[in-house]
This record gives sequence, structure tokens and C-alpha cells, in this order.
Amino acid sequence: MSGNTIGKLFRVTTFGESHGKALGAVIDGCPPGLSLTEEYIQKELEKRRPGKVSGQSPRKEKDKVEILSGVFEGYTIGTPIALLIYNVDVDSSAYEKIKNVFRPGHADFTYFIKYGGYRDYRGGGRSSGRETVARVAAGAVAKRVLEEYGIEVIAYTISLGGIEVKEKNLEVIYKNHLFCPDMSAYEKMCEKIEETKKEGDSLGGVVEVLAKGVPAGLGEPVFDKLSADLAKAICSIGAVKGIEMGAGFKVAYMKGSENNDPITPYGFLKNDAGGILGGISSGQDIIIRVAVKPIPSIKKIQKTINEKKEEVEISIGGRHDISAIPRIVPVIEAMVRIVLADHLLRQLANLAFQKRLKFPDFFKD
Amino acid sequence: MSGNTIGKLFRVTTFGESHGKALGAVIDGCPPGLSLTEEYIQKELEKRRPGKVSGQSPRKEKDKVEILSGVFEGYTIGTPIALLIYNVDVDSSAYEKIKNVFRPGHADFTYFIKYGGYRDYRGGGRSSGRETVARVAAGAVAKRVLEEYGIEVIAYTISLGGIEVKEKNLEVIYKNHLFCPDMSAYEKMCEKIEETKKEGDSLGGVVEVLAKGVPAGLGEPVFDKLSADLAKAICSIGAVKGIEMGAGFKVAYMKGSENNDPITPYGFLKNDAGGILGGISSGQDIIIRVAVKPIPSIKKIQKTINEKKEEVEISIGGRHDISAIPRIVPVIEAMVRIVLADHLLRQLANLAFQKRLKFPDFFKD
Amino acid sequence: MSGNTIGKLFRVTTFGESHGKALGAVIDGCPPGLSLTEEYIQKELEKRRPGKVSGQSPRKEKDKVEILSGVFEGYTIGTPIALLIYNVDVDSSAYEKIKNVFRPGHADFTYFIKYGGYRDYRGGGRSSGRETVARVAAGAVAKRVLEEYGIEVIAYTISLGGIEVKEKNLEVIYKNHLFCPDMSAYEKMCEKIEETKKEGDSLGGVVEVLAKGVPAGLGEPVFDKLSADLAKAICSIGAVKGIEMGAGFKVAYMKGSENNDPITPYGFLKNDAGGILGGISSGQDIIIRVAVKPIPSIKKIQKTINEKKEEVEISIGGRHDISAIPRIVPVIEAMVRIVLADHLLRQLANLAFQKRLKFPDFFKD
Amino acid sequence: MSGNTIGKLFRVTTFGESHGKALGAVIDGCPPGLSLTEEYIQKELEKRRPGKVSGQSPRKEKDKVEILSGVFEGYTIGTPIALLIYNVDVDSSAYEKIKNVFRPGHADFTYFIKYGGYRDYRGGGRSSGRETVARVAAGAVAKRVLEEYGIEVIAYTISLGGIEVKEKNLEVIYKNHLFCPDMSAYEKMCEKIEETKKEGDSLGGVVEVLAKGVPAGLGEPVFDKLSADLAKAICSIGAVKGIEMGAGFKVAYMKGSENNDPITPYGFLKNDAGGILGGISSGQDIIIRVAVKPIPSIKKIQKTINEKKEEVEISIGGRHDISAIPRIVPVIEAMVRIVLADHLLRQLANLAFQKRLKFPDFFKD
Repeated sequence: MSGNTIGKLFRVTTFGESHGKALGAVIDGCPPGLSLTEEYIQKELEKRRPGKVSGQSPRKEKDKVEILSGVFEGYTIGTPIALLIYNVDVDSSAYEKIKNVFRPGHADFTYFIKYGGYRDYRGGGRSSGRETVARVAAGAVAKRVLEEYGIEVIAYTISLGGIEVKEKNLEVIYKNHLFCPDMSAYEKMCEKIEETKKEGDSLGGVVEVLAKGVPAGLGEPVFDKLSADLAKAICSIGAVKGIEMGAGFKVAYMKGSENNDPITPYGFLKNDAGGILGGISSGQDIIIRVAVKPIPSIKKIQKTINEKKEEVEISIGGRHDISAIPRIVPVIEAMVRIVLADHLLRQLANLAFQKRLKFPDFFKD
Repeated sequence: MSGNTIGKLFRVTTFGESHGKALGAVIDGCPPGLSLTEEYIQKELEKRRPGKVSGQSPRKEKDKVEILSGVFEGYTIGTPIALLIYNVDVDSSAYEKIKNVFRPGHADFTYFIKYGGYRDYRGGGRSSGRETVARVAAGAVAKRVLEEYGIEVIAYTISLGGIEVKEKNLEVIYKNHLFCPDMSAYEKMCEKIEETKKEGDSLGGVVEVLAKGVPAGLGEPVFDKLSADLAKAICSIGAVKGIEMGAGFKVAYMKGSENNDPITPYGFLKNDAGGILGGISSGQDIIIRVAVKPIPSIKKIQKTINEKKEEVEISIGGRHDISAIPRIVPVIEAMVRIVLADHLLRQLANLAFQKRLKFPDFFKD
Repeated sequence: MSGNTIGKLFRVTTFGESHGKALGAVIDGCPPGLSLTEEYIQKELEKRRPGKVSGQSPRKEKDKVEILSGVFEGYTIGTPIALLIYNVDVDSSAYEKIKNVFRPGHADFTYFIKYGGYRDYRGGGRSSGRETVARVAAGAVAKRVLEEYGIEVIAYTISLGGIEVKEKNLEVIYKNHLFCPDMSAYEKMCEKIEETKKEGDSLGGVVEVLAKGVPAGLGEPVFDKLSADLAKAICSIGAVKGIEMGAGFKVAYMKGSENNDPITPYGFLKNDAGGILGGISSGQDIIIRVAVKPIPSIKKIQKTINEKKEEVEISIGGRHDISAIPRIVPVIEAMVRIVLADHLLRQLANLAFQKRLKFPDFFKD
Repeated sequence: MSGNTIGKLFRVTTFGESHGKALGAVIDGCPPGLSLTEEYIQKELEKRRPGKVSGQSPRKEKDKVEILSGVFEGYTIGTPIALLIYNVDVDSSAYEKIKNVFRPGHADFTYFIKYGGYRDYRGGGRSSGRETVARVAAGAVAKRVLEEYGIEVIAYTISLGGIEVKEKNLEVIYKNHLFCPDMSAYEKMCEKIEETKKEGDSLGGVVEVLAKGVPAGLGEPVFDKLSADLAKAICSIGAVKGIEMGAGFKVAYMKGSENNDPITPYGFLKNDAGGILGGISSGQDIIIRVAVKPIPSIKKIQKTINEKKEEVEISIGGRHDISAIPRIVPVIEAMVRIVLADHLLRQLANLAFQKRLKFPDFFKD
């Protein structure tokens, strides 16, 4: 029970079902004095909106975020920041006929079991990818926190439908709708998407996320390692089936002498560790790759059963994305930011004590 | 700060440095009435002891566990179970000369930064793999919890030094010191280890972990997904650089129609999801693979620096393992068990309320 | 940082400033299958609305609650329940002139210090008593949980402005606007309020809260005792300066032979313990008394200072209540319910394991 | 389940039964670089040892604390500090004959119900006052944290067996075994204790605790108010039946104009708030009074029942204290210190961010 909160000092709680009244997030622990506007948050939300290019559903999600609390005259005030996104123009009619059916690859079955049959079947309810809109909104607040320390988080697609990027030119990722750092791979990805769309099928991929400017010292022994909390945060996104840090699964085939990153007086010579040593940030870039499964909603006919254990065939209609990429890209960024903001504050407590940071004394100062 | 506790209802807190006085764990939230003995826990600890075969350090770790509390007349009583393992016959002399040196691939540098120079350099202190002895002890208590529900967790080596298993015969994994389910691969792994030992180097590998008998319904939306909590728990082990569930990174190359597991009136037809749908267990086996980096302590000469930013060369002497495998195998089992025990109890609260489970009424019953 | 959440399995997070856009609560961990409507919650909110009788401010707070998530077709579905109350017709003009002044007895000074000068001064911001509207809304959800187990929580005024009740006739508490169980004391309290109003002053009082039908066994050793969690929850209400359980402060003057509640085969002979033994509910009524300070906002002229440390005099205008009673009565009920719902679920996990409660097996059942 | 941990950044987990093998505490979140020795902690433990004067049991509790981890070469290193106190020379024979009996005023009954009959009856098991030895040990670590910021916590007896102190001379509290700040009241208390001892009965009392030097700004809105967390921490001590802060229950009889503490450019004119405004420390002394019930173990014959619901009479033998005072005095100090250390670190995170405290950059600095 009660698993909708993440973080310790910078805490994010989200709520909302896909076709319910609204989705939102409460961010508790954001420090005071940060400028924050709805426009700023909205900009992050736009990143996950359907582009004009193929592969994404033509739904018009009018995701307008409202700041309900925690901000006064444009600045955060240390109190919880509640963010709200009303669901508008929701049409749930398509779900009426499959309300008792367990869609393969979806959480219909597990929610049905877990909650004794009480579930909002419309659009996947709480288990919908749409839930992540609240994460992205909360991630925008984390972004503000990190900006003050010059920490930047950026995610991009490195593989989609079997097409791998050949180069990582981060300058082009906002110039194409797949956040792809290789324009030539991007073209092929688009073709692959078109082709798959015709087949009524969907595609998986790999997203890489990079955190730059993270100071050394973030992360706590032994369970709340930065790597562990990042793993949790990213794996809490529905479509994720694997993650790897730095050299990742390749470490299985490396020797210690290859894998270890030599240290010089001027820094590390390479970064196979992915910026984390012993669970604590080393000051190098943090690099994580994320395996994203193909969207389970496909037009192709699938065999499954309904709540009465009867066999049924379903074809899930055309408004769905072909891949969780690119929508998942800003979500991954958001989750990484939330974890970094949390660990930043935790390490600041440690650091401030080490420095015996003085408390203000109003009557004497 | 304060990251040495994991779990919500079944909570494990560990403590202890590699060459300190003792290591231990406090398990808070273990239900009453479970038989539990030091022998039972000791048996799990033995799994991580150096075998007779090559590849592991000849150190004799006399890890004797003591139960200090929470057990009365052989049964748990619902109060915290404190487990203690004294460090005996510790020889820290080898560390004296490298006390100011940052060993590559180790947490020496990050601990130094994080804690302002205060650290127990001996044997890696809190960041040592030895810390996991407390996890394995705590995992034994989780094992008792799971046994009552017929849940079994088993981990084994599927790749070591580039040698992959060809078959997964779980019956042989306790018949070889690498927990390898393929005796022919095991032979090759041993050869590889011998060879690497001569080179003064170390090896990485991949461990797979399987949880059988997990009921459907464990895991919470949206952040405390079972997959997310497993990811955190496993990635909190020092040597882990990646994990994948079910089809894992292969999903990136699959189509939805391939990846979705069809559901029939008799169950799922396959298990590419790895037993978790929407973050909640589906009743199928949970399958996770874990990338384990090569042990960073190697005899081969490495370049690094000391606390004064001076360049130094180090060769880390011979008592070290060649691979974190097999020692990490029982640790992975332990972490998976701790997470499952926690989520079992969380779902029991949910289920009990759904059934309106009656409270005992002593004076009326 | 981040202190706006309470509870472990039944978790309540609140947000909102007094004159901000909205206030609300997210309840995470409410079990599925409970009927829940906005009308039901609204009814609890009405309890804290200004009555027609003297002593309360004539403000018309149009507190309309909206359920944003977690409820589908009239039933909870196990996902977070977000409750929203927009602030309407807010007039903050009265606060403009005292925006830089620290009102005595208020949190103006401490918020100013804590948050480095960033604060919403309008109506006390987050530190306003108005914040409790979100607690009452969340408490209504807890009430639904408790109803299923026949647990009832009721609070009432036993002392106001020095007038003590002589009898505790719970049947009349909803027949007077002070939730007073003694109609004759009620009359005197009203007179006292009128008189105090003329003086431009305010009054304190004592509220008693009673929880009936609580099963034995709720509460956890040693820190999360039921008594400890109730103490925290009640003391988290701004105006509370003391609480006592059962015989309370009288125990200081009792002997063990007087204070101990004798146990017979048919139950306890008396209830000086207030229903809690060793921090765990005993099955008897839980009884707590709460000291409520006089409202600090008074018309009488007070000396204080502003943010520049200049001396100022203030008179806080007429729209304020004379006492936090009766508005605090439903808030105390709400907090007690939230704690009980949380501990109910925690003990259900324990109980369910003790009974080895079976998980559903969809494919076999 | 799992209620044996308190605190968020400075976290204390305790374990141990009264007559079990050992008791102890794990402190997670103590900053590095603090000098800490077993002698220092031992000194705090001595405070709760039986004095030579009447009223306290003549048992010789040889409570020797061991530091097992988290301290290296005399300084904390940021990792969990495990403290252990073995139970030595325990004689449980006296409990054998009452093992099935529910002692009135004790937790025997509630533990029996909660844990389905599994309990360590010897000396009250986990519910024994002896459990608090681990709190006092942990409190000593908190004391070290607070010392660095000049924060001092001191508790003393202001009422015992109906004898009230007339003056509060803190200089004499360590000169008498009851921590009484009035030597003349102390004499009478001793007489009262002697007299009660002859009656085979026990006494309650009131302890006051004072925290000096607490900076303004500690405590979080709205649930983790400093007042709320202090209330929880203190009420988690078994014998406590009430607490009040500042003017406490007297506020019920005060007017706003009396209760409000006027603010001047030089500070507050009085301290009826007890140092906490809106849940946040104001920089004034924190003052709390605690109602302590008489020890339930008395020689006088009491009627009760056993586990089979049979009526029995018991007389609980002579080795017991007559009052929880003075043993509870250091326990109250410890709990207040633990809460203050936790909130100090939480506010330091806030403050450090406000100041944009710089992280060290090893390679550039």
C-alpha cells in the first residue's frame, strides 16, 4: 500500500488516472526562493506532447498545468507545491467494450487481482503511461533546483526498432521529434515507424540519459546509493525493462584492469563507472541506458481472456503511439532530476554540518 | 544522510565496516511465530564463504552470526531481530600503506569527498563487499517469511569472464562453487579464473535470479512498483552495473506482438515480462539478470593518486577474489527476498482489508 | 524539509496556503472497494464551517471539495485519492498593511526565519488554521476505512474560556455549535464568548476525543506506539499546546494501585490507561484531552515588530474567531482517524500473516 | 509493523528485550568528524543507573556500551553507528511463575493479543522500561551533534508523589538522585518514596525538559512540526500519559492577549509558547512538561487474569523501582535530543540550499 511517493527530502507524490478528472503532483521539500512559473513547467510538459511526425498518436492532449500552492509572487516559499493537470476532452468510449478484457502486456490483469476487481479500466487508469505527465511536471521543479547548482540532465534515443545511432550529436536532439542525436538514424527510425504502423504493431528502443555537472558526494551508503535510487526511479516507469550504468552489461566481459577508471591529479581518465563509484557520484557525468519495451497496445489481433476467464480476441485501435519513445524521454529526465534534487539536499545537510553552517540569529544579526 | 535502511513494513537496517568490530543487521517488521535459529541464518552465510576452488580468496572469514533479540524460545516475537557478526582475526596491515591512496574502481575517492576526509580505509570500510554479510543474514529472515508462502528465490551464474552457460540445470548449481547451472561451462569458467589470476587481473559476469511461487498482486503503483524496488535493492549492491527483467534489453528489438505475453484461461503462454506487469507481480516466475563488474582490486599495477593529488602506482595484493561471483550470488538472493517479504506484507494489509479480516476479541472469543 | 505527509500505509499529504489558489490532500493507501462520494466528505467539512452563533467569524467559506482521482463509479480503487478545495472569494486586502509585521502568537516570525523571508503573508499562508480543511477532508476518507471495522471517533468541547462541562451527554453535541456535551455549560460558554468578543480578545479551551470500537492490537513498539502517533498527529495542529491520555496529568498524583486498571475475565474494570497499554490499543475506548490555545489574532492592540525590527502596534480586525473551538473539533477527529486507519492497516498486515491469509490464484481458483 | 525507528535524517533504530541477549541502537545519519567514545556514551547511561538512595531497585545493571561501527580512530565517519549493551547476570526466575499472567498496567495483555501469543514474558520483554537504555545510548550521539551548535537539553523532576518543587535551581539537579531542582522538595519526595515503599505501592510524577540554544527555524510544516515530533518522541516512552508545551494546559484558561508573547526588537518578552511558534522553533527555550505514571509493578496484591482468562492474584516482588522517575529523566533528554538533531540536519539542508553552499571540487580546489 501507499507507493505513490518518491524521495526523502525532495519528495514527490503523484495522483490521477488516465481518464479521470485530473492528474497531479505534490512536491514537498522544494527550498524557498526559487523562481517558478506555470510557463516553465509547461515547457517541460510540451516535450511529451505528440509531435507532428508519424509514430505518435494524433490525440490532442491539452495538458495545461496549474500551480495550486507553494509559490507566491513567482517564488517558491518552502511549502508543498501542488501541480494540477485537468483531463479535458476525454473520450472513454473505446474502452467500454474492452472493460472486462485483460489487454496483453498491460497491467489490467495485475490491477484486477491486486484490487479485488475495483479498477478504472478507461485508458489503463493509474497504470497508463499518461500517469507520467505528473512526473514530468514534478521533474520541472527538480530542474529548477538543479539549475541553481549547474546540474543538467538530458536524455535521448539511441536505438529504436533496431536502428542504432551512429553518433551522439546532442545539438540535434531537439531538432527531431524522437530526441535522436543522429539525424541519419532518425530518418531510418521514422521509416521503421511508418512500416510498423502499417503492420499494426509497435516498437521498443533504448534511451540514454546523461547528467552533467553533478558534484562528487551525492548518494548514501548502503541502500540509498545514488545508483540504487536512480535505478528505482527509472524502473518505476512502466515501459522500462532494464537499465545499465556506465559500461553497463559490458562489464561482464571486461577485466578489472580494463574496467577500472584510472585517476590522475586532473581527474579520471575515462568513465566506465558512469559517474558513480561505490554508489556515490564521483563528479564525472552520470550515464545510464534504459531499455524501453514496445507499446503493448497494438492493432494486430491478439488472443487473451476476460475477467470471466473466457477467451477473446482484441485489436487495440489506432490512436496509440507506435513506441513509448519519444514520450518516455522527458519522463526519464524528470525521474533522474527528482532523484538528483533529493540527493543534493541530503548531501547539503551533511556538508552544511561539516562546515558548521551558521543559523541566522534575527535579534542579534 | 541515513540511507542504511530498506523496506517499509519489512525493514532492514545494516551497519558495520569491513575491518571494524562487527557487522550486523536489524530486521524490523518480521511477523511473530516464525521458527528462526542461528543455524538457519548461518547456512545462508556459508554460501558466501570462500570455496576450496580457485578464484576466491583463501581468507578464512569466520562469520558466526548471533541473534541478539526478537527471537524467544526459537520463535520470532514481532520485535526487531538484531543479528551480529563479529569481525575476527582481522589483519589490516596491508591497508596501512595505501590508506591515503584512492584505489581505482573503489569508493575511496567518493567516500573521501563525501565525508570530508573521515573514513575507515581498512578493507574499504563501509563500502567493502564485506558489508553484504549483513544483507545475507537479514535475507535469511526474509527467506523464513517467504517459505511460509511457498516463495522460493534462487540465483546462479550465467556468464563469467565471457563464458556463457549453454543450459540452465538448476540441480547442479550447489554442486559447484560458482553456482553455475552448466557443469561444462563451469569447467571453462574455472580455467578462465586460473588464467586471469596469473595475469593479476579480475573478471566480471552475469547472475540471473529467479523467484518462484510469487503470488500475483505484489507491488504498488506508481513509484514502489515491485520492479522498481527490486531494481533499487539489487543496484544497491556495490558491484552491480546493470539489471534487466524478463526479456530485458532485448525488448528494444522486439515488436509489441512479439513482446506481449498472451493470456489464456490457463495462464500466460510465455514470460517475456519476467513476471511483472505494470510493476505488479503476475504470478509468473520473476526473472532478473544482473551485470556484475570485475573486482577492482587487482595485482596488476595501476596508476592513481593519493589524497594529496600525487600520482602513485599500486598493486593490490593477492588475497582478493578474482570475481565478485560467486560471493554476490547469495547477496542478490538476499536482496530479492527482502523486497519480496516487504511487498508480501504490504499486499497482505490490502488483502486483509478487502476480506475484512477480523481482529481477535479476547474477552468475547 | 518535507514534513507535509503523515502515516505509513495510510498516508496523507496536504498542501495549500490560506489565501492561495487551493488547498488539498492526497490520500495514498486507501484500500479499494470503499464507497466514497464528495457529499460524504463535504459533510465532514461542514462541521468546521462557521455556525450562526456568536464566537465564529462570519466569513462564508465556500469549501466545496472535489475528488480528482482514486474513486471510480463511486468506489475507491486503491490508487491515490486527491481531494481539492479551491479558495474562492478570498479578500487579502486586510493583510496588505501587516505584510511585514510579525503577529504575536503566530508563525509569521518563524516562517520568516526558516524560509529566508519568502512567505505568503496573506491569512497566515501555510501556517493558517485554514490549512486544516485538507486534514478534515482526508479524515473523511479515514472515517470510511474505520466504519468498515465499526470504529467511531468523536470529539467535543469540555472546557472553554474557563467554563467546564459538568456532564458529558454526547447526544447533544451536534445540537449546539460548540460541540459541547453539556447544554447548560454551553449557554455559559456562549456568554463568555460574547463578553470576550466585546473585549476584542480570544479564548482557549479543552477538547476531549473518544475512539470507540478500536480493536486490541493497534500500535507498534517502540517508537510508533499508537499513543506516540496520536500525540504527533494531534500536536501537529497549530493551536494545540498539550495532550493527555486516560487519567493524563492526574497520574502524577496517583499510586500504582490506583492507576492500574484491574483485568477480569470479562474485561478491564476501569480505563485510566485511556485505552492504550504499552503503546498498543487494549480494546477499551481511547480517550485523549487536548489543550487549545486562544486564537492569537485579536482586536486588542498588541505591541510587536516588523521585518525591519521596528516596533509597531497592531489590532487584528474583526473577522476572526474568538476561539479555535469549535473549528478544531473536527480537525482533531480527523487526525485521530488518520492515525487509526494507518495503524489498522499495519496491524492487518501482521494479523493476515499470522493467519497465513491466502492470496487469490486467478487461474486456479 | 516496523515501528522501531525514529527520525528522518538522524535516524535511530533500537532493538532488544529486557532479559534477552542484548539491547542496542543503530544511529544512521550522524555526520562525520565528531569525536565519540564509549566513555562519553557510558556517562549518559550512568544517569539512568540505580542510585544509592531509596526508591530505586538495588539491581546492579552493568550496562556497558560498545561501539560496533561508525567510529574510526575516535571520530564518526558518516556510516551507521551501532551501539550494543549486553544483558549480563539476568535472573528471569521471578517471571517464570507469572509468565501466563497479564500484569495490570503493563503491556502483557496487548502484546499477547498483537503477536498472537508469541512474546518474551521475562521482565516485560520489549515493552520493559529497560528498552530505554538503547534510547539513552543513541541520545548521547545526538548530544554530540547538538553540542557542535551549542544546544543543551536538560530534564528534571518537578513533581513526585504529589510533592511539587517550589524553585527550579538547575544547579542542584545533579546533586540529588531524583534530578530535583529544589533540595527541600527533594527531601519530602524521598520521605514519600520510603512511605510508599512500605505500602508496596508506587508513585507518579512530572518531569520538565528544557532545550536551550535551539536556533530559530527548526521544524517543518505541517505534520512534522517540531512540537509534533517532540510529542511523538516523548509519548513513545512507555510511562508517559501526557505532555504540555510552554503554558500547556493553562492556555485553556488564558485569553489571547495574555497568551501571546509580545515581540520586541530585542526578542520575545515572555515564553508562554514554550519556544515553538507554528510548529517551528523561535529561538527561545523549548519547555515541555511530561506526566509520568506510577510504575505498574507493585508489591500490593492485585487482581487480574491469565492467558486462559482465569482470575489470579499477583504481588510483584521487591526489586522494582517505586517511580519511573528518576530513570525516565535521561530518557526524556535523549528523545528530545534525537528529535532536535534530526530537525537540525533537516533545516541545515534548507539553509545550505538558501545559501547555495558550495560543494568541494577535489580536482579544481
